Amino acid sequence: MKKTAETKLRVRYQETDQMGVVYHANYLVWFESGRTEFMREHGFSYKKLEEKGILLPVVDIHCKYLYSAKYDDLVVVRTSIKDWNKWKIIFSYEVVNHETGQCLAKGESSHLWVDRNMKRVNLKKAVPELYDWFIRFTEEGK
Amino acid sequence: MKKTAETKLRVRYQETDQMGVVYHANYLVWFESGRTEFMREHGFSYKKLEEKGILLPVVDIHCKYLYSAKYDDLVVVRTSIKDWNKWKIIFSYEVVNHETGQCLAKGESSHLWVDRNMKRVNLKKAVPELYDWFIRFTEEGK
Amino acid sequence: MKKTAETKLRVRYQETDQMGVVYHANYLVWFESGRTEFMREHGFSYKKLEEKGILLPVVDIHCKYLYSAKYDDLVVVRTSIKDWNKWKIIFSYEVVNHETGQCLAKGESSHLWVDRNMKRVNLKKAVPELYDWFIRFTEEGK
Amino acid sequence: MKKTAETKLRVRYQETDQMGVVYHANYLVWFESGRTEFMREHGFSYKKLEEKGILLPVVDIHCKYLYSAKYDDLVVVRTSIKDWNKWKIIFSYEVVNHETGQCLAKGESSHLWVDRNMKRVNLKKAVPELYDWFIRFTEEGK
Repeated sequence: MKKTAETKLRVRYQETDQMGVVYHANYLVWFESGRTEFMREHGFSYKKLEEKGILLPVVDIHCKYLYSAKYDDLVVVRTSIKDWNKWKIIFSYEVVNHETGQCLAKGESSHLWVDRNMKRVNLKKAVPELYDWFIRFTEEGK
Repeated sequence: MKKTAETKLRVRYQETDQMGVVYHANYLVWFESGRTEFMREHGFSYKKLEEKGILLPVVDIHCKYLYSAKYDDLVVVRTSIKDWNKWKIIFSYEVVNHETGQCLAKGESSHLWVDRNMKRVNLKKAVPELYDWFIRFTEEGK
Repeated sequence: MKKTAETKLRVRYQETDQMGVVYHANYLVWFESGRTEFMREHGFSYKKLEEKGILLPVVDIHCKYLYSAKYDDLVVVRTSIKDWNKWKIIFSYEVVNHETGQCLAKGESSHLWVDRNMKRVNLKKAVPELYDWFIRFTEEGK
Repeated sequence: MKKTAETKLRVRYQETDQMGVVYHANYLVWFESGRTEFMREHGFSYKKLEEKGILLPVVDIHCKYLYSAKYDDLVVVRTSIKDWNKWKIIFSYEVVNHETGQCLAKGESSHLWVDRNMKRVNLKKAVPELYDWFIRFTEEGK
């Protein structure tokens, strides 16, 4: 399950703070862009998932900050699936400066498959075609 | 219709940018806090309005910036109703530095009364008790 | 002075609110992305301008909202210069849904040329090469 | 070192997303409000610390989400110091629904003492009065 999606982002002025660097919470927003692109590239867009009534709320997040991103930097979010099963999914991320290749931050986010009422669902029953897709995706990655 | 609500806010680090002052779009978020408190103080919370199926999307916004707000400043948003009728409502705002009294920004936001499908509604028919409240509120203010 | 820069943006989940559409203040952030790209494309990046000690704070902003942008939409910000002189510059913007071509919002932002102490500067004296560039840019556009 | 500061916040519409709950990255912003108030209440404001040339960038953050905060909820951030020394400081947080007392999220943030050039500093040498304050604060808490 090594497949990675790369999402390029230009740092916005709005994302900086008075320290002159990107405010730390914005990396979580970039993670979100990363997993959205990951899912789109691999054929099941998060938007369509929501249209099927499945939401993926974040239940746990971790981020380690190594170097600062700055205004107007081009950064790349490298997203991959760390683990998943019918109840949850864990994405992992690396944020890299596109020009220098320097790793700026690393993180992980854990998500539950839930319905519109925030009740946990069994993905295998709720969206079997997505569950099957994951199985195939995982096997191929081995 | 001179009645004004005052909402106190502490400037967050996240709200600053690398210019060392508050990023301009955040004043619009403060306006939103201002009109939320205005409505609550005057007896009809925006939350309850939404529960009745009425939304108030912004259709026009204007803001004039005079002086900068800075991290950790205590600012006051003074909100009042500039105009309203059964189809729309216009709020006006002043953002003031609480310590110095200096006016930092002035703005206005126009909103339509719409339903959950973003269709315009006639407030008089949709929520007559709120419409009546506005009539009384306006009269008293004269 | 008709030249326009086009900046493509993918709507982030973070940019939506519970109305199910993009929160209105985010359009101002997109305007900022728009003018950053406008400046970069035309040869004087805002980042370099700041390195020369010139800042461009927003002193006035206006936005008219026509239709909602939604999560995962691809939107285009069309940015152009509406007016400028040695003391200030006004950008204008259109936000368009990339797929449908529908215009979602229109806006303008006014900015002053200031130094790091937020004192107004005369661009002609402060950065004559940029002033000259503007003159040429304007002439060509006629 | 059990002393806790409580910061009350009203959930902003801007902080929600289309799931109808607060977007997860906003809890990190609330943590920032929490530690700002913690420091102010205990006599050394973060603003003053920055004026002395000491910054406290986040180098590691973790947040576990238990229940959703919703628009217009009043939430309380309970902030305390988990650990500290002359090189770094770790804050811990609990976000609680003010009305129900339900714990919504728990988190931690690690920070380094650095100077304006983002070089690590020894707090004992850089700001001895703050270092001494910490010693006393820790002793009292025992």
